[in-house]
Amino acid sequence: MITDEEYAAALDVRHPLGAARARLARPDPRLVYLDGNSLGPLPIATGDRLARFVEEEWGRDLVRGWQRWVDLPTQVGDRLGAALLGAAPGQVVVTDSVTVNLYKLAWAALDASPPGRRVIVTTDHEFPTDAYVLSAVAAQHGGSVRVYDGLIGDDVALLATSHVDYRSAEIADVEALTVQAHRAGARVLWDLSHSAGSVPVHLDAAGVDLAVGCTYKYLNAGPGAPGYLYVRRGLAEQLRTPIPGWFGHHDQFAMASEYVPARGVARFLAGSPPVAGLLAVDSGVALLAEVGIDVLRATSRALTTYLVELAEEWLLPLGFRLASPRDATTRGGHVALAHPDAYAISAALIRDADVVADVRPPDILRLAPVPLVTSFADVREGLRRIRDLVASGGYAGAEHVGRVT
Amino acid sequence: MITDEEYAAALDVRHPLGAARARLARPDPRLVYLDGNSLGPLPIATGDRLARFVEEEWGRDLVRGWQRWVDLPTQVGDRLGAALLGAAPGQVVVTDSVTVNLYKLAWAALDASPPGRRVIVTTDHEFPTDAYVLSAVAAQHGGSVRVYDGLIGDDVALLATSHVDYRSAEIADVEALTVQAHRAGARVLWDLSHSAGSVPVHLDAAGVDLAVGCTYKYLNAGPGAPGYLYVRRGLAEQLRTPIPGWFGHHDQFAMASEYVPARGVARFLAGSPPVAGLLAVDSGVALLAEVGIDVLRATSRALTTYLVELAEEWLLPLGFRLASPRDATTRGGHVALAHPDAYAISAALIRDADVVADVRPPDILRLAPVPLVTSFADVREGLRRIRDLVASGGYAGAEHVGRVT
Repeated sequence: MITDEEYAAALDVRHPLGAARARLARPDPRLVYLDGNSLGPLPIATGDRLARFVEEEWGRDLVRGWQRWVDLPTQVGDRLGAALLGAAPGQVVVTDSVTVNLYKLAWAALDASPPGRRVIVTTDHEFPTDAYVLSAVAAQHGGSVRVYDGLIGDDVALLATSHVDYRSAEIADVEALTVQAHRAGARVLWDLSHSAGSVPVHLDAAGVDLAVGCTYKYLNAGPGAPGYLYVRRGLAEQLRTPIPGWFGHHDQFAMASEYVPARGVARFLAGSPPVAGLLAVDSGVALLAEVGIDVLRATSRALTTYLVELAEEWLLPLGFRLASPRDATTRGGHVALAHPDAYAISAALIRDADVVADVRPPDILRLAPVPLVTSFADVREGLRRIRDLVASGGYAGAEHVGRVT
Repeated sequence: MITDEEYAAALDVRHPLGAARARLARPDPRLVYLDGNSLGPLPIATGDRLARFVEEEWGRDLVRGWQRWVDLPTQVGDRLGAALLGAAPGQVVVTDSVTVNLYKLAWAALDASPPGRRVIVTTDHEFPTDAYVLSAVAAQHGGSVRVYDGLIGDDVALLATSHVDYRSAEIADVEALTVQAHRAGARVLWDLSHSAGSVPVHLDAAGVDLAVGCTYKYLNAGPGAPGYLYVRRGLAEQLRTPIPGWFGHHDQFAMASEYVPARGVARFLAGSPPVAGLLAVDSGVALLAEVGIDVLRATSRALTTYLVELAEEWLLPLGFRLASPRDATTRGGHVALAHPDAYAISAALIRDADVVADVRPPDILRLAPVPLVTSFADVREGLRRIRDLVASGGYAGAEHVGRVT
């Protein structure tokens, strides 16, 4: 039976990433960490890399280190693009936060659209920041935001939405939506925050114009590590950034008083890049590149499929509802389970059961195995603890701290 | 004679920061580091703090760490404001880069100005990024930039300039210019990148409206550490950010689809904050707070005054010109010396003489002792090596790498 311990053990024998497990920190053997979609675990190599950066580079080389650091946004961007985004070199930079990057690219897309196109089409279930930024950008250009209803009219400048939904984990059809937008004369902007590093992404092949994403989830780059942005080759030269900075200047160290944008995607750089964060992104990307996104995805699918099957046996009878697609081919790296008491359950899981998941309004418990470290036995143990907690009612009164990003 | 070794030694006996020197990494005893205005040295405590963050917080606490990290932008902002900006709590946040922060605040100031006020007054010698951003913001609001000529007209929305000039180190009169701007009905925005941590700043007392600054120079927070912004109490509620993000939302974790700005300066937060960078800022600020800005400033003045006196003896006869105020009371933490071959001289100093200074177009060699670690003997030794190099002509043909921020 799939609920048996032996079943999980048999799956783990064939776990393709067993050997890679030692590459990530696993500090507490009792902890079942099912929140990889919120903050990815620490790669051991990243700890070493950051220590070396602090002591040897900043500490010893001092300002001379900039001779190497200055190109990190494009270098790490190229490596990220090749390993995880299906992007040829020269189209990705790692810089700023997802929020700021989304602002820059959406602003640029509207700025470059003909006067009759001032609408941004998006969904009504985007991550909040995305909704805020898209509304603000539309308003700043005298336009508006419209919820996607299957149609994209000829007043649309930009279709902007997420590759993987942050609550349901549903995977959008990047190719089809990009084609539809282009036929309507609009550009597309994909938020890859919940997909890249978990689900294969093929930006070049799909003809995507613009994309942004974060690095602290599936890229294991640490809390608040910088985001990235992608601008299709040939498109950047048609776009202006709203935030022109010296790192995006054609000839940065001439320090001219007139702004002349760099060729290509680098024009979307602005201020001095966060070196520690860039090195952490580089280290995280290198680890994923070594394993390969296809193996990661296959492992993730197997783990989440097993998780869904266990949930059907153990949790649905306790009042949970599957809020993710049942079909693994259209589901990203996490599983959403709805329960009216999701917030209290999540709080009690952390407090009493050493299970870390997270919650999203109104009632969604999100569970994300980390393919690199989570075993099938971990998934079973996590689900077993959730079952026992909920069956016992032991979560009643648990106070959600509301402070987990 | 001031050029004697004994003179420097006598000054060092009274160096008020001798004991604090052990708090910063000093990796190479031969190196004379005179570029503290570009990248401050590593505080030993920061290396320890970052290692603890990586291994114990990210590595072990994982996503639960956000319960502490989430408030860092305001907490570190308050501590920075109290120690170095003359700002009461609730007016400073540490976030994003200086470029992005300048954009947000300048945009907000123009956005909130009456229709007839669309001009930004600034100087023609700002740091390039500032010039680019101010021009872009003015254009985005249908306005323009005007160079300050002593007058501020009634079409001016914002006076935006630097407290300490990034080339000459001249200190602007914050109080007088702020009063003048307010009399004209304009708001003021000060860039403190080259002053805070080096020169006392009194934002509240001067009635300043807005300010931004960086942390990798005099705040010793490391390359690309996040910048900060200040919004005067009571003003934030009248301003909108152009980049609304979830960290600036009134009730972030409700994750509502409508943006409701947080009260106060926190509305200018956007995406997830860079935790490692914030901890480094906190550590750097704590060190400066412990020493005290008045002691730092007095030491800096003594060091730069000695540097100027030595330059007058040794370097002016070799074709250098003092490009900073002679009067220490109007000079910030660095000294600018102009020389037609400044670029080649700087390159040769690094390559052949273990002296790190930096250059700015067209011909400025910048020299910045770090009050916490630079001794008077260091200053003398640095100037002696510059004299010997230039007197010998040994810099001819040295290629400037152009890559030192």
